[in-house]
Amino acid sequence: MERNLANLFLTKRTNDIRSSAIREILKITVKDSEFLSFAGGLPNPSLLPTERLTQATETTIRTKKDVAFQYGDSTGYEALKELIFEYFVDEKEDFSKSLCITSGSQQGLAILGQLFMDENTNVLLENPVYLGALQAFSPYRPHFVSLPMEEDGPSIEALETILVREKIHCFYANPSYQNPSTCTWSIAKREKVASLLDAYGVILLEDEAYRYLDFTGTVYPSITSLRKNKDLSFVLGSFSKIISPGFRLGWVSVPKPYETIFTAIKQGYDLNSNQFSQVVLVQLLRDLDIRKHLQKIQTFYANQKNHLVRLLEQYLPEVKFQNPLGGMFLWVEYPNVSAKKMMVKLMENKVVMIPGNEFRLEKSERAFFRMNFSFLPEEQMEEGVRRIQSVYRDIIT
Amino acid sequence: MERNLANLFLTKRTNDIRSSAIREILKITVKDSEFLSFAGGLPNPSLLPTERLTQATETTIRTKKDVAFQYGDSTGYEALKELIFEYFVDEKEDFSKSLCITSGSQQGLAILGQLFMDENTNVLLENPVYLGALQAFSPYRPHFVSLPMEEDGPSIEALETILVREKIHCFYANPSYQNPSTCTWSIAKREKVASLLDAYGVILLEDEAYRYLDFTGTVYPSITSLRKNKDLSFVLGSFSKIISPGFRLGWVSVPKPYETIFTAIKQGYDLNSNQFSQVVLVQLLRDLDIRKHLQKIQTFYANQKNHLVRLLEQYLPEVKFQNPLGGMFLWVEYPNVSAKKMMVKLMENKVVMIPGNEFRLEKSERAFFRMNFSFLPEEQMEEGVRRIQSVYRDIIT
Repeated sequence: MERNLANLFLTKRTNDIRSSAIREILKITVKDSEFLSFAGGLPNPSLLPTERLTQATETTIRTKKDVAFQYGDSTGYEALKELIFEYFVDEKEDFSKSLCITSGSQQGLAILGQLFMDENTNVLLENPVYLGALQAFSPYRPHFVSLPMEEDGPSIEALETILVREKIHCFYANPSYQNPSTCTWSIAKREKVASLLDAYGVILLEDEAYRYLDFTGTVYPSITSLRKNKDLSFVLGSFSKIISPGFRLGWVSVPKPYETIFTAIKQGYDLNSNQFSQVVLVQLLRDLDIRKHLQKIQTFYANQKNHLVRLLEQYLPEVKFQNPLGGMFLWVEYPNVSAKKMMVKLMENKVVMIPGNEFRLEKSERAFFRMNFSFLPEEQMEEGVRRIQSVYRDIIT
Repeated sequence: MERNLANLFLTKRTNDIRSSAIREILKITVKDSEFLSFAGGLPNPSLLPTERLTQATETTIRTKKDVAFQYGDSTGYEALKELIFEYFVDEKEDFSKSLCITSGSQQGLAILGQLFMDENTNVLLENPVYLGALQAFSPYRPHFVSLPMEEDGPSIEALETILVREKIHCFYANPSYQNPSTCTWSIAKREKVASLLDAYGVILLEDEAYRYLDFTGTVYPSITSLRKNKDLSFVLGSFSKIISPGFRLGWVSVPKPYETIFTAIKQGYDLNSNQFSQVVLVQLLRDLDIRKHLQKIQTFYANQKNHLVRLLEQYLPEVKFQNPLGGMFLWVEYPNVSAKKMMVKLMENKVVMIPGNEFRLEKSERAFFRMNFSFLPEEQMEEGVRRIQSVYRDIIT
């Protein structure tokens, strides 16, 4: 992290704290409306039903004011936990688990960092990896180990080699429509990894923030649900992608033995998650037909994805990407350019996407970019791709 | 923290993580409505104007949906920051400072813990001290130093002795209507402490969560505003006590040199604070006459306090407390009993207050209890004091 902190009193760990280029880029694009942004991971606000939302908040204020505007249980509002168990927790991963509502799944990562990581912790990560996890874990200065990935999940051979070579304490994985690679692990690989984690006693931090954004409505079994030793498995979920990031709510399935200490860390962070949002969300979820709502967003994002894929095929046939099964991104390689050089030109031409190296522990020479397709309307997406084409062609000729 | 973690993988720091007895007690009293609770620090929900709140949320959904239900700036929603600068930040403490919205002032403490504290950090604390600060700081295992307090603030003699004897890196202080002691520092002491902190280069973490709950409307100058070296001073504020804890919003005035790294830690914790609540709060604050609203709650809490004081004088003339100038608590010493024994009997008799030792690094033999007066209606307060009287008289005879 670049900054001039020479004269400041700080702890050693602050050397490892990472800024998010994504959030800096988002700030610029918010301020300048001429920017076309493929940068964020922004859910499309049109998918949030205004009428029902208004009703849900009215009902909350009218009938639940004393609960909604007070401090709440540190583990979350009971009625919301019940709905999550009902709709979003696989029975097979649920065995002996408790649930803690968090302030976004990002807070779940921050709690797990404080719980498990210090300079003696070896943490296995997918390469590339979700930047927010690096932000949550890095301050605790664990030793990170990078796991090579293939199209259908991790390289099992590489995983076995690593597990034999060194004690891995925690594995942070994002097996469905991974951010940023879009990789979705096959069921065979999930099973194989589950049994290896059991064999080596590895704690799994399974981030399922995108789980319900499959383009055909498929819900993959979590790795946790396939493990024997569920006491070593945490599953993180989020309402940000399926309802709204404005509620800033997620959850973590916590194995019972860790429940008390997980809750104590959560208390130290913010006492409890936003109670007003939790109560409104309960009203909204009860009123929405959740399955229908999920179908609606799945169809919408599938169409958006198809549109971006077609545009890239049309305007930039030389770029490479895996066609994703779900999520909000394409992970696109632009051959024969420097990502840094291209980024400068993109900003000049008021179009933006996230350079792949933001998601890596060790920088790659290849120019990958994460391109979001959930937010821009179709015409603006086309204009954006045109700008990218012009920048790219200028650089490579 | 009592628990059986013998077989769990955990970092060393988890030995220092503290549970909150308060939150455990709150859980019990919420479940059993026969309990009369002087335990929480719960603002009175009647003080939140329902009509205006409904209007504010409607306006938000109708006119600000795209902003309110999206990710936001990690440092907070700009319009809310402007209102905080206008109404709640003393110009004199503002010099060269930036503002970061946090998920309650508790999150401000958690960020400051990660920023400044490790095993080499000496942190000065008032005795007794706010439990939430211990929860936020303890995981980083700093060396805590206890500062003896007098009725009008810290013992200056003790402070000077400590500053000469050892390097103090940070001082966490809660100078107005301190939770739990209710102590309010005199202006003379604020000035003296400000100049000592400047002389010794101490970072001040000034918690002003109760600042606007003075019973006569007085706003004391912050210690920060009296310092020369404002680059070593953070001021924490909160909407929980003056508007509602349901919004889970607070703020920290951050010296400019620390702005980037403070924001990066905030990102790692939860990306940004609840955006929906921030936008609703802006609508509400614009619509409320803030000064009138503050007067209303000040008068209400002053009456509640006077009522509890009268009840204690009537039913329990043997107990001792300082009559507070503001806030939500009395800090009451019950002579000649064991607090532990009394706590058991109180729970049996369905009345509850928080044992003073929860707020101490080193347990005291004297039986102090923190008694909240903001929440219970007058008749229930009287019945509660009667139950306490009966328990107390039973034990001492």
